[in-house]
Amino acid sequence: MEIMQVMGSLVCTQRVAGFAHLNLRVLRTPKGKLSVACDPVGAAPGNWVFTASGSAARFATGKPDLFTDLTIAGIIDHWSPDG
Amino acid sequence: MEIMQVMGSLVCTQRVAGFAHLNLRVLRTPKGKLSVACDPVGAAPGNWVFTASGSAARFATGKPDLFTDLTIAGIIDHWSPDG
Amino acid sequence: MEIMQVMGSLVCTQRVAGFAHLNLRVLRTPKGKLSVACDPVGAAPGNWVFTASGSAARFATGKPDLFTDLTIAGIIDHWSPDG
Amino acid sequence: MEIMQVMGSLVCTQRVAGFAHLNLRVLRTPKGKLSVACDPVGAAPGNWVFTASGSAARFATGKPDLFTDLTIAGIIDHWSPDG
Amino acid sequence: MEIMQVMGSLVCTQRVAGFAHLNLRVLRTPKGKLSVACDPVGAAPGNWVFTASGSAARFATGKPDLFTDLTIAGIIDHWSPDG
Repeated sequence: MEIMQVMGSLVCTQRVAGFAHLNLRVLRTPKGKLSVACDPVGAAPGNWVFTASGSAARFATGKPDLFTDLTIAGIIDHWSPDG
Repeated sequence: MEIMQVMGSLVCTQRVAGFAHLNLRVLRTPKGKLSVACDPVGAAPGNWVFTASGSAARFATGKPDLFTDLTIAGIIDHWSPDG
Repeated sequence: MEIMQVMGSLVCTQRVAGFAHLNLRVLRTPKGKLSVACDPVGAAPGNWVFTASGSAARFATGKPDLFTDLTIAGIIDHWSPDG
Repeated sequence: MEIMQVMGSLVCTQRVAGFAHLNLRVLRTPKGKLSVACDPVGAAPGNWVFTASGSAARFATGKPDLFTDLTIAGIIDHWSPDG
Repeated sequence: MEIMQVMGSLVCTQRVAGFAHLNLRVLRTPKGKLSVACDPVGAAPGNWVFTASGSAARFATGKPDLFTDLTIAGIIDHWSPDG
């Protein structure tokens, strides 16, 4: 899974059916690349999240018939080097 | 899903069966990389779109037996930092 | 799907069963990266083609039990900015 | 599979159901890119591991209904050029 | 499929079940990136091979329930520009 930051929401009036009412978020990797993800957890702009891609992205929405290839799987509280 | 811009249409008289009559678009990432995608939404050159890849690309066409690995999932109106 | 150019053919006497008699082509991306693809359309060296990857690559061969992850899906005649 | 090093653990109180009680580790590639993986083998920070991605990542957890796209598949003792 | 060179073998006493007795090889891309692959063909260090990734990697082992996402599919004898 990848670590990304939420930038904002995506507005698309003309899109394929199959995203139901899930929100679409614009995410940014640490290197600055933008991606679009479904958001079943309710992430806010500025949040750091981790994302599931591929077929896992569909399962992670709870509705495997959605068309997403990237889904926010969780909001990161923090991570520890626990060394 | 990725954010890309529509550049034009692709003409291929010699291709495998299995794309039905769907249009093939040439897309460009913000970094300039070109890709080819099926277009079930009717995007026009210059439009910014978001694309579904992998197995999601087949489902997004509405015909999962197509051979695509990239499908235009929606035309972006705008995206807001909603912060 | 990606846009690539056919460089030549690959000779492998020692390989896993499961590619049947399909030709294997060496392809090059515009940036110079080499890949290997199954070729069900009969592309010639120098041709620009577009390729399907992932599970779509298997379906595109017409024999989904092949082991390929990259298949030539069509030979590009040209593409137009149609703007 | 990729070779990565374990950096630490990820704490996410707000996440989708579907990761059961598996630990989430933060991994780093040799080039410094961070990723998040499920850990069914009990890797410790500093360990070099190899990871399975895609649908293989779900099978490698022993619970294919998990939502992961990256799973630690083994801890590397060493590798030998055996030439 | 990708073109890579075999560097050596990987020793992992602590790993998930599901790789049976297949050898694990360390491979290097022409750009120097290291990966780990299952080897059902018996490649030797120094050999140039081509690899199948994703779900094709599992099928290429002959045991689709393995957890690999990269499998050596053949040893390259040579490739010809056949122009």
